[in-house]
Amino acid sequence: MMQAPPIGTLQAGPRGTIADVAGVTVGHCTLDEGAIQTGVTVVRPHRGDAYRDKVPAGGCVINGFGKSIGLVQVEELGVLETPIALTNTFGVGTVANAQIRAAIEANPQVGREEPSVNPLVFECNDGYLNDMQALAINEAHYMNALDACSDDFERGAVGAGRGMSCFELKGGIGSASRLFDIGEHAYTAGALVLANFGRLAQLTIAGEAVGRALQSARASQTQPERGSIIMLIATDAPLDARQLRRVAMRAAAGLARTGSVYGHGSGDIALAFSTAYTVPHDADFIAVPPLAGDARLDPLFQAAADSVEQAILDALFSAETVAGRDGHRRISLNEALRTRS
Amino acid sequence: MMQAPPIGTLQAGPRGTIADVAGVTVGHCTLDEGAIQTGVTVVRPHRGDAYRDKVPAGGCVINGFGKSIGLVQVEELGVLETPIALTNTFGVGTVANAQIRAAIEANPQVGREEPSVNPLVFECNDGYLNDMQALAINEAHYMNALDACSDDFERGAVGAGRGMSCFELKGGIGSASRLFDIGEHAYTAGALVLANFGRLAQLTIAGEAVGRALQSARASQTQPERGSIIMLIATDAPLDARQLRRVAMRAAAGLARTGSVYGHGSGDIALAFSTAYTVPHDADFIAVPPLAGDARLDPLFQAAADSVEQAILDALFSAETVAGRDGHRRISLNEALRTRS
Amino acid sequence: MMQAPPIGTLQAGPRGTIADVAGVTVGHCTLDEGAIQTGVTVVRPHRGDAYRDKVPAGGCVINGFGKSIGLVQVEELGVLETPIALTNTFGVGTVANAQIRAAIEANPQVGREEPSVNPLVFECNDGYLNDMQALAINEAHYMNALDACSDDFERGAVGAGRGMSCFELKGGIGSASRLFDIGEHAYTAGALVLANFGRLAQLTIAGEAVGRALQSARASQTQPERGSIIMLIATDAPLDARQLRRVAMRAAAGLARTGSVYGHGSGDIALAFSTAYTVPHDADFIAVPPLAGDARLDPLFQAAADSVEQAILDALFSAETVAGRDGHRRISLNEALRTRS
Amino acid sequence: MMQAPPIGTLQAGPRGTIADVAGVTVGHCTLDEGAIQTGVTVVRPHRGDAYRDKVPAGGCVINGFGKSIGLVQVEELGVLETPIALTNTFGVGTVANAQIRAAIEANPQVGREEPSVNPLVFECNDGYLNDMQALAINEAHYMNALDACSDDFERGAVGAGRGMSCFELKGGIGSASRLFDIGEHAYTAGALVLANFGRLAQLTIAGEAVGRALQSARASQTQPERGSIIMLIATDAPLDARQLRRVAMRAAAGLARTGSVYGHGSGDIALAFSTAYTVPHDADFIAVPPLAGDARLDPLFQAAADSVEQAILDALFSAETVAGRDGHRRISLNEALRTRS
Repeated sequence: MMQAPPIGTLQAGPRGTIADVAGVTVGHCTLDEGAIQTGVTVVRPHRGDAYRDKVPAGGCVINGFGKSIGLVQVEELGVLETPIALTNTFGVGTVANAQIRAAIEANPQVGREEPSVNPLVFECNDGYLNDMQALAINEAHYMNALDACSDDFERGAVGAGRGMSCFELKGGIGSASRLFDIGEHAYTAGALVLANFGRLAQLTIAGEAVGRALQSARASQTQPERGSIIMLIATDAPLDARQLRRVAMRAAAGLARTGSVYGHGSGDIALAFSTAYTVPHDADFIAVPPLAGDARLDPLFQAAADSVEQAILDALFSAETVAGRDGHRRISLNEALRTRS
Repeated sequence: MMQAPPIGTLQAGPRGTIADVAGVTVGHCTLDEGAIQTGVTVVRPHRGDAYRDKVPAGGCVINGFGKSIGLVQVEELGVLETPIALTNTFGVGTVANAQIRAAIEANPQVGREEPSVNPLVFECNDGYLNDMQALAINEAHYMNALDACSDDFERGAVGAGRGMSCFELKGGIGSASRLFDIGEHAYTAGALVLANFGRLAQLTIAGEAVGRALQSARASQTQPERGSIIMLIATDAPLDARQLRRVAMRAAAGLARTGSVYGHGSGDIALAFSTAYTVPHDADFIAVPPLAGDARLDPLFQAAADSVEQAILDALFSAETVAGRDGHRRISLNEALRTRS
Repeated sequence: MMQAPPIGTLQAGPRGTIADVAGVTVGHCTLDEGAIQTGVTVVRPHRGDAYRDKVPAGGCVINGFGKSIGLVQVEELGVLETPIALTNTFGVGTVANAQIRAAIEANPQVGREEPSVNPLVFECNDGYLNDMQALAINEAHYMNALDACSDDFERGAVGAGRGMSCFELKGGIGSASRLFDIGEHAYTAGALVLANFGRLAQLTIAGEAVGRALQSARASQTQPERGSIIMLIATDAPLDARQLRRVAMRAAAGLARTGSVYGHGSGDIALAFSTAYTVPHDADFIAVPPLAGDARLDPLFQAAADSVEQAILDALFSAETVAGRDGHRRISLNEALRTRS
Repeated sequence: MMQAPPIGTLQAGPRGTIADVAGVTVGHCTLDEGAIQTGVTVVRPHRGDAYRDKVPAGGCVINGFGKSIGLVQVEELGVLETPIALTNTFGVGTVANAQIRAAIEANPQVGREEPSVNPLVFECNDGYLNDMQALAINEAHYMNALDACSDDFERGAVGAGRGMSCFELKGGIGSASRLFDIGEHAYTAGALVLANFGRLAQLTIAGEAVGRALQSARASQTQPERGSIIMLIATDAPLDARQLRRVAMRAAAGLARTGSVYGHGSGDIALAFSTAYTVPHDADFIAVPPLAGDARLDPLFQAAADSVEQAILDALFSAETVAGRDGHRRISLNEALRTRS
């Protein structure tokens, strides 16, 4: 299997995934049953209770053709209070229900003495391979993905990525990390993407127009893009919600370098969070560590853009060929490259 | 029963509800079973298929402590493509699922040849009266509310308003309308609110500090606000999504006049839509009628603010006293006023 | 002279102005020369160099019919780095130039080793009384207002407020303050407004429809609103930029209670800043004190709304009758009230 | 002189500039006097009076470290009402004054019977080459640039681009165009950029990491980025303001492909406008032609991203080496490439 070429000049962390940001874990639940090719992926910002110890976060809607739940409150309050869930477009409601039930189980006062919890679920549309109309996701799938969270996780056609397509090839989950400094301090940024966007002709790998070459070797596809990409960025650098929104915006740069122009039908959404401190659920005052100066964020902006680009390539190079509903099939990038040569 | 005093100087429409905007209908499904005091309310912008014939819309998040689904895409694309659903905070996911299933039933290509549909569900937290942890809302409740849609509908402690509290009194569904002119043309604006916000001391009715008077007559309550209000504004004036966002913002003025300062824990969200034209699901070009000049919108802004204020009062004056979980009870404004005197 | 009635139940600070927030000072330069009825008002967040020691800030555009300069960068970086200047619509460019020159004088590296400074100038349109086409504001007027900054300052038809109209009466500068607690700590919020909005019929004073009463006593005016209001809120509570944006939004509630529906032609903009800490111009890390928990902000939200409403009334009750260009004349609220009775 | 390689697969228009969009013209006023290396560039959306016949427009702030004036009102009202002016950071106020005076001259009622005009001035920081502290721009420079507007205009180190730097090379004005179809109709999109961003090591030309190669051949520079880029996109396709905001966002993709990650200190702002119809200054209703369906915008999104990337390369390849203040000098890309080989 070919490997994704390294992007940029910053060094990757030891795992080369979002789990290089200490405490961040990822779990999948994958459904691979004929026409059902879908799943759930969960990213936990830390191993504790995300509701009691919230993490600062900021989102960026690059193209809002999307059906996520939870961003309105993140924008207002600047924190996450559940793990982040990824799934298919028609699974959002069910996964939100599962997040609510999990929060109640851990905190029986939620919905009573404490008013509510903010589910946070992002989605892409895997309807080319997956029979989305079956609404196959159930709440147990979320719990399974949550239980599976680990700092050592698979990428490619797994979890929410199982049925996703990217550049008309097999897409899915990808991840990457980069190391950077602020002043004399060393930090890590990591990205995890659910990649499900793009036309083959747009595919650009490390600056090379690979997609055009591949396309001329294959029969042209005429179906319009129905993509989307969710881009999560974690860092252990101390930032507030406003700064994290700035970081999330840089995902747009990494995404563009792979060939995307943020197509109309593609819900392109980024979310960045910091693990440097937590915001207790209920406190008069919130202790905040010294925050990185905005004028020192360029290395993190570079790390964010590079991690996202690298993570997209990781998804493409990690994903295997998958066959799904009605004879639909997405071949892997590796297979496409082999076939060409 | 006392009546809400008339607000402002504009004339109301014949029904005095959002249904004065021709084609708009409203339906409820009410759950009144002991500790389960909740429901679903549906607002249909027209009697056709909202997915095939979308209506222009614009939203405004006044305070984003809320768990709605669907606003991201409304912001990007400027249209609704489902009826608007209201329910309790923990019912959003299930009602979104119901909207998806209803869209698929009407349009079997959704999730296949046509990628997806954007559910649009708003919520308030009825956890004081309702046992929200029971997650009592199911998909049939949405379908029942949808089937019940009519231009003649109840207000008060019905549908999504069944368990809602407002100014520590019984809240719920309220509605109002106003007539206005642009140039030589006569138009209607209507509001429907799900009112669930405010502390008693803040309650202001037509400028009078009624809440302070009531509070001194009753034992002070110490529970912090866990409110929210959803404010829907319909008009038959021809506007685009940008202009409708401007209209939605004026809901904040009507809301403020009742005493709200958009409390921290109150998800205060407004959405405005126009019935003057529809946007076909799939077309090269969209025919748009001559749009109202922005400099002519002041009468509509006034109508929007006045309708929202009137609709909040309508909710308070229409709602009956309701008892719910754990002996919790919200008395109606009418009962509170009677008790005082 | 009649006094503005007290708004709400929170206590005012000793001065009853924005200068109750320690360190905040205000200065005016007033031009009163026949058809030239205009000026500049400056609000300094502290007595030091605002460029070297920036203060956290957040803005809220309630209605964006306005020509301010500086908000784009405040939104991105969450700080002020100049005093806040108010003037007439056609004076913005000149006052921005003056702010740049003042910053260079204090910091000769600005525009060289350090790239730039962000001028922050807000405006309202005083063209009814003032001959705006004369572009009478020059850079010295800004410097004069800056030099005049004091914690004891005039309100009414002074500074930028000289030529402003409010509810078709004489408007201008108003200010107010409120005390509030977060946990066991006592804080102050103060508002300063440049009030230049509204139709007479809308004027509402402490809930009473005074405008309608006054209007029936006077010949109706037919000129469309060309107003605007700038609302500045200062607090010594420790907040970050995201939270200050939330505070700024509450200005919309205070404004609405005076009768405004945020008219089309009215540039209604609010800005909130905190004096609890400063952000040094250039630092690897920014020390931030423990920040107020968002769930504790309701008293501040109430203080912000009440201060803004009170400050608008203060402008109306403080302003004297002014005659300006072409025989135009705005009578004071006091004169209007006397005339009626 | 080497040429910029062609970007993407869409065809350019006959001029290969923004003037391929019929009616759009561009003019420069260039100041080249020792330490004064700056200027003004004006883009006129049509040859008429922009105040009386406004054009629909939408902006996108990619990174808000910028001092533009005018965007707040464009966001609210969705139209331009002056030509678009570009200049250096400290020239914004003066150019805004010039726009006001020009509007008054053409429409003597502005500031009187008609309340105001919204100046629209964007800026980049040319302080490396230009003595910005001299505030050398005066109002006549704007008028000269306006008078010079033509569909045949220079690019490179001219007008506002005179003193700009890009990737530590000489930057400035660049332009490009692309042809695309919506349904059966053919349209044009054109971009004009004021390019003043980036570190040499980031420079990427048509996917090739040219900057890294150049940097190893030259002494590394250590000055932090103080850049910015303004990206204007014109099209004759019929779009409304919401859609034009979507188009403006796609500038971020073109920008990213040249190597930018939207650095902290770089004010990266895009604005798109349509020439397909105009909005009369004062009308009860606005006639709007059939608008392009959002689902048909992908070709325009591709054209926008490609035009912006091409325009940035055009600025780099067109600009000559310029020497400015204090012995500072920016060599052209052509010179850098020659020197290397």
